[in-house]
Amino acid sequence: MDRLYFDWAASAPPDHTINIEVPFGNPSSLHAEGKAARKALEDARSLCTGLLDIPSDQLFFTSGGTESNCIILNSLLLRPGNTGLLLSSIEHPSVRAQGNILKQMGKSVAWVNPDSSGHITPENLQKALDKFPDCRMVSIIWVNNETGAINDIAELAKIIRKQQSAPIHVHCDMVQGLGKIPCDIKSWDIDSAAMSGHKIRAKRGTGILYLKQKPRILNTGGGQEHSVRPGTENGEGILHFAEAMKKYVHPDAVKKNYDAAAKRCELLIDALRHIDRAEIIPECRKKNDAVFSPYILQVSFKGIPGEVMTRALDDAGFAVSTGSACSSASKKRPVLDAMGISEQQALEGIRISQGYSTTAEDIEKLIDAVHTILKVL
Amino acid sequence: MDRLYFDWAASAPPDHTINIEVPFGNPSSLHAEGKAARKALEDARSLCTGLLDIPSDQLFFTSGGTESNCIILNSLLLRPGNTGLLLSSIEHPSVRAQGNILKQMGKSVAWVNPDSSGHITPENLQKALDKFPDCRMVSIIWVNNETGAINDIAELAKIIRKQQSAPIHVHCDMVQGLGKIPCDIKSWDIDSAAMSGHKIRAKRGTGILYLKQKPRILNTGGGQEHSVRPGTENGEGILHFAEAMKKYVHPDAVKKNYDAAAKRCELLIDALRHIDRAEIIPECRKKNDAVFSPYILQVSFKGIPGEVMTRALDDAGFAVSTGSACSSASKKRPVLDAMGISEQQALEGIRISQGYSTTAEDIEKLIDAVHTILKVL
Repeated sequence: MDRLYFDWAASAPPDHTINIEVPFGNPSSLHAEGKAARKALEDARSLCTGLLDIPSDQLFFTSGGTESNCIILNSLLLRPGNTGLLLSSIEHPSVRAQGNILKQMGKSVAWVNPDSSGHITPENLQKALDKFPDCRMVSIIWVNNETGAINDIAELAKIIRKQQSAPIHVHCDMVQGLGKIPCDIKSWDIDSAAMSGHKIRAKRGTGILYLKQKPRILNTGGGQEHSVRPGTENGEGILHFAEAMKKYVHPDAVKKNYDAAAKRCELLIDALRHIDRAEIIPECRKKNDAVFSPYILQVSFKGIPGEVMTRALDDAGFAVSTGSACSSASKKRPVLDAMGISEQQALEGIRISQGYSTTAEDIEKLIDAVHTILKVL
Repeated sequence: MDRLYFDWAASAPPDHTINIEVPFGNPSSLHAEGKAARKALEDARSLCTGLLDIPSDQLFFTSGGTESNCIILNSLLLRPGNTGLLLSSIEHPSVRAQGNILKQMGKSVAWVNPDSSGHITPENLQKALDKFPDCRMVSIIWVNNETGAINDIAELAKIIRKQQSAPIHVHCDMVQGLGKIPCDIKSWDIDSAAMSGHKIRAKRGTGILYLKQKPRILNTGGGQEHSVRPGTENGEGILHFAEAMKKYVHPDAVKKNYDAAAKRCELLIDALRHIDRAEIIPECRKKNDAVFSPYILQVSFKGIPGEVMTRALDDAGFAVSTGSACSSASKKRPVLDAMGISEQQALEGIRISQGYSTTAEDIEKLIDAVHTILKVL
């Protein structure tokens, strides 16, 4: 049976049509083999910074979105003076967990809640900042990985910049937005951002940290990536990532794929709205809503735990998920909780996430399968 | 011109004859694609723990040796009470640099020097421990990456275990020994060890952390690798690493490759001893010396800076290095310095490191090239 994959937000199938030649040397070595590896690495960096339209000395390769987030959050451990950290309550587990650890280590950590649509509003952010004069770092996710809510990072950054206290580092987890939602990072006035390769069909184990000015970093090791991310570079992963960026992060590709995904998302929401027991989360999400990623949709089915629906769809040949893969071991749904979704409904939520190669026909098949399942469950 | 590669200690050419099938799902996902990825990951883990003869719940995949080292050293930041860290002065940059950072963060850090042969002796270790009652972690490299000196970890661990103070975590950087020197980790009585994939022909960007009992870990993120190493797992890298382990870390393979490397090393040392201006570092190293890795040799040429010799050999088609690739940006040679090698000679040192596919003929060609270069330099 052909399976249909609707869990692109967890991991996208790597693009095996991308061909790369990987020099085998260590980029830090000074001989010809090392120089070839260095050149390939720097070419990949230029390709990525060109596509993102940022200076080439502001992009560092990491092992993934999680590490990119951790590098920034952990830099607070080396920052002198006040080191208050403000996090949105809808951050990815890699940020949320690290915030909790920093708190256990004695750092002061506060949270800003989203509104009921799952977005961080300027008002909520302003209030949180007003109550937190020690704040020196804010981390806000661009596209939420469970609901698809797109935060207006440019607008939120402006509010942070207006604070009269000491400079505040503005960090953004861009993992679910890169290659999905058109953007211009430069115009955002943020200090750093995390990106991940495997969400845009690169291989798992690669990430990017965009970083305007280097703070003191916890791990520096052998000085690779300008002492921002130590360890011998994952050459093959990085080169493949850069080629995937060329294919999927080029502004034209992002636009084209976005438009197609938006149409399929409209189909999906339309069909779900016709199912009595289905409730889109958040309820206010419109058919073609610019403040949500068309690639991610959260929906609950009355009386059916998300886990049960996920398993039923899996048995029928469809891969969907409940929360993020990174929190699949935990049954908690803190993102939905922060939005004011009832515990009951949150446990009934599933995430349907589509990708570049999803088709309208795939969506129709998924809806048919949901109908069939609802007849028996 | 065919080039000959003598920098295996920096990075070994990946083994492209290894074929693996990589399920594309996220191992944390609960659907069929996720389960297939999980199974492949756990099969890879079992393969590795089987080869290392350790329990399967004591091996965690990381992005490399540097990260494996950092996870352990950074755990001191979450350890209550005394957190003194004792490092050998011949650690890899990833350990040395992290030790220095922890010191800057207020941790108490002390160093134990090697003897003039580059080995950490039981006496030196005992003295260092006697002077450091706050010590709660010791990190000693197994095979030094610049001289090839093999430390007797089993013996050194025994001394640490005899300390009457609180328990001391014993960590070992095994990167240059894995797949090169026969060993039985279980018999060592250590708490953790770092290993790297790309030194044994796996791809760059993969590592292993052997860890007996989990301390509190700084980065836990989405809980992957049992909250020892967060971030979506590098599936392809890990599966390839496990197959490389099967090929090169199997005890029979290690023994066979070791014996062959030892013969070639004997050839190399013999030939160098016949060159007036060549001085093996340390001088006491014998032709076939069991306390040095046959894969790594440090040698200096009187009056010729290591960088110049490296470049001359590179021009002649031979890749060698000066220090470790991870410290190529710095001209300092702290390992040689700690052994009491003069600054002059240290700057003249080059590292010749061979690998599984190096031949006696390659060694002869290298020696011929050295002779030719010495005529003009």
